[in-house]
Amino acid sequence: MEQKKKFTELWELGEFRLIDLLTENNKIRNKSTLMGIGDDAAVIRYDGQKTTVITTDLLVEGIHFDLAYTPLKYLGYKAVIVNLSDVYAMNALPRQITFSFAVSNKFTYEALKEIYEGIYQACEQYNVDLVGGDSTSSRKGLFISVTAIGEAQEKELTFRSGAKPGDLICVSGDLGGAYMGLLLLEREKKIIKQNPQVQPDWEGKDYILRRQLRPEARGDIIELLHDKNIVPNAMIDISDGLSSEILHICQRSGVGAKILEERLPIHEQTKEMALEMNLDPTIPAINGGEDYELLFTLPVDEFAKIKDYPDIHVIGNITDKPTEVNLIMRDGTPIPITAQGWNSYDERPFEE
Amino acid sequence: MEQKKKFTELWELGEFRLIDLLTENNKIRNKSTLMGIGDDAAVIRYDGQKTTVITTDLLVEGIHFDLAYTPLKYLGYKAVIVNLSDVYAMNALPRQITFSFAVSNKFTYEALKEIYEGIYQACEQYNVDLVGGDSTSSRKGLFISVTAIGEAQEKELTFRSGAKPGDLICVSGDLGGAYMGLLLLEREKKIIKQNPQVQPDWEGKDYILRRQLRPEARGDIIELLHDKNIVPNAMIDISDGLSSEILHICQRSGVGAKILEERLPIHEQTKEMALEMNLDPTIPAINGGEDYELLFTLPVDEFAKIKDYPDIHVIGNITDKPTEVNLIMRDGTPIPITAQGWNSYDERPFEE
Repeated sequence: MEQKKKFTELWELGEFRLIDLLTENNKIRNKSTLMGIGDDAAVIRYDGQKTTVITTDLLVEGIHFDLAYTPLKYLGYKAVIVNLSDVYAMNALPRQITFSFAVSNKFTYEALKEIYEGIYQACEQYNVDLVGGDSTSSRKGLFISVTAIGEAQEKELTFRSGAKPGDLICVSGDLGGAYMGLLLLEREKKIIKQNPQVQPDWEGKDYILRRQLRPEARGDIIELLHDKNIVPNAMIDISDGLSSEILHICQRSGVGAKILEERLPIHEQTKEMALEMNLDPTIPAINGGEDYELLFTLPVDEFAKIKDYPDIHVIGNITDKPTEVNLIMRDGTPIPITAQGWNSYDERPFEE
Repeated sequence: MEQKKKFTELWELGEFRLIDLLTENNKIRNKSTLMGIGDDAAVIRYDGQKTTVITTDLLVEGIHFDLAYTPLKYLGYKAVIVNLSDVYAMNALPRQITFSFAVSNKFTYEALKEIYEGIYQACEQYNVDLVGGDSTSSRKGLFISVTAIGEAQEKELTFRSGAKPGDLICVSGDLGGAYMGLLLLEREKKIIKQNPQVQPDWEGKDYILRRQLRPEARGDIIELLHDKNIVPNAMIDISDGLSSEILHICQRSGVGAKILEERLPIHEQTKEMALEMNLDPTIPAINGGEDYELLFTLPVDEFAKIKDYPDIHVIGNITDKPTEVNLIMRDGTPIPITAQGWNSYDERPFEE
């Protein structure tokens, strides 16, 4: 590469802007492509009533997972889950996955077998089939690429773009646990590095560790919505953090949002860990990633059908003010929500 | 990991055996999965007449490509082609792709833009849509994961398992060119390393370089077969080398094969380069990979429909002797064909 030209470093752009730039001139040629880049998954239909949804994720050692504290079985499980979560976020049902990996010679057959045990556990749990993949070596580290494929009737699909003013903003489960689990694991890793004799004490922290290491995808919520004949106006899964996801919905739908701080569902262990680390628990709840909960918007009367379901929480509402996405604090102060979502290029990794 | 247990190094197994072992207990649960692991692509049908075929490949810097001599635009193009080739090998038509990458901070936006130019060129050339992907950083090197999705009527699908005794074995194009292109590039790279002033002389070598750096997928052959209403009994694309691919067909079909050395289609430049490197040109033709030609078997009377097509060559025939897969040399001697296909684990890469 010549040195005179001005080049743009990737961390100057961040992931979303980078992909926007790289795909701004992308052309769709086939009428079978119902949805391309820009949602949780692509949507395809060749014929018949059903659409096929497809999503893919790349997981990189040292970026997405640390083998110092990630059991290989959990890694395989999680690699599947993060993709199933994207399929569910389209209101679709996952049916197949492909699993590819590149490994260095540090890995043995037995290590890979453990990863596959996690994959098979996820396949059994979510009733999906492993149908393909690729395997190769890498010079350094473990790289995993998973693609998930699912089915949905076209009229049942939910996109990020359908939120309407007046919609209630709902979230499943609770928020921030996976992030606090990560902070805990990183802290213990440092302590053990300094003093290998120390035994980490996980008592009372099992929930946040599980949220980080072995998350689940909310297929139960999709089943509930199907049972109640509810199709959310908009839906997304929370992988990069609530802030980032609500901004995606608002930008794509051309609407604004109010999120009420007091309504954010936060698990007791998440709160405790945050306070132990001198963090306001609201921070991991709105900016922590990897919870793989579903964020969706519904008209008020549709919500009435599921209001007694304990694991779905109304955390705010959609407004008609496109540029205003605010977190309303307990004292009533509105704080603009900005994307604090996790961005792998922020880390500016250096070639080793 | 404990050291007492005996662990199995990956190079002891090789890619095919590794995948066999890792997937031997894989269970298919969904009736929408028509074909799982074991062919060029998986086949899915949710409803309707058309099936969806899906295939995925991982390309790793330093293993599959060397950026010292691979133009980024060609790399993007080739990453798409290798996947489209797998879709064609099912007798299906590719319609969509996803493209994911992990890059180190050595890469700039401008470098990625070049890769995407190659992707878009391939999309235009083959009329496919880029519909998704993932992007992230890596600690070191460039990793590319592409998934291709295509459509086919179920009755048109071709698997590796359908070859029948008496079938003619056909191959498109010519063989060994991509491998000789690779040997040439590797040789020139060494020369330039020793003497940076040397200008490599590519004259008369353009064909084999193109075969290595910017291959095409044989959609034209699939179109021809469709036009002539021919559905091969078995088909596979040549990515790992003719030897490896004919063995796949024979093993899966429970048949044997005779390949005639004198019938192997070899380009003039491939021959010249082989002789220049003191190699018998038959070697790259049967063991060289990455030609992305199609290898298929047909009953004699079906072949009659395409016998005048200059770019399809009959190189032998299928026999009813399952264990006998032979190359019949010019002097009539049969040489058993063994898998000499490229295996990334053979290289025993070391953690750097």
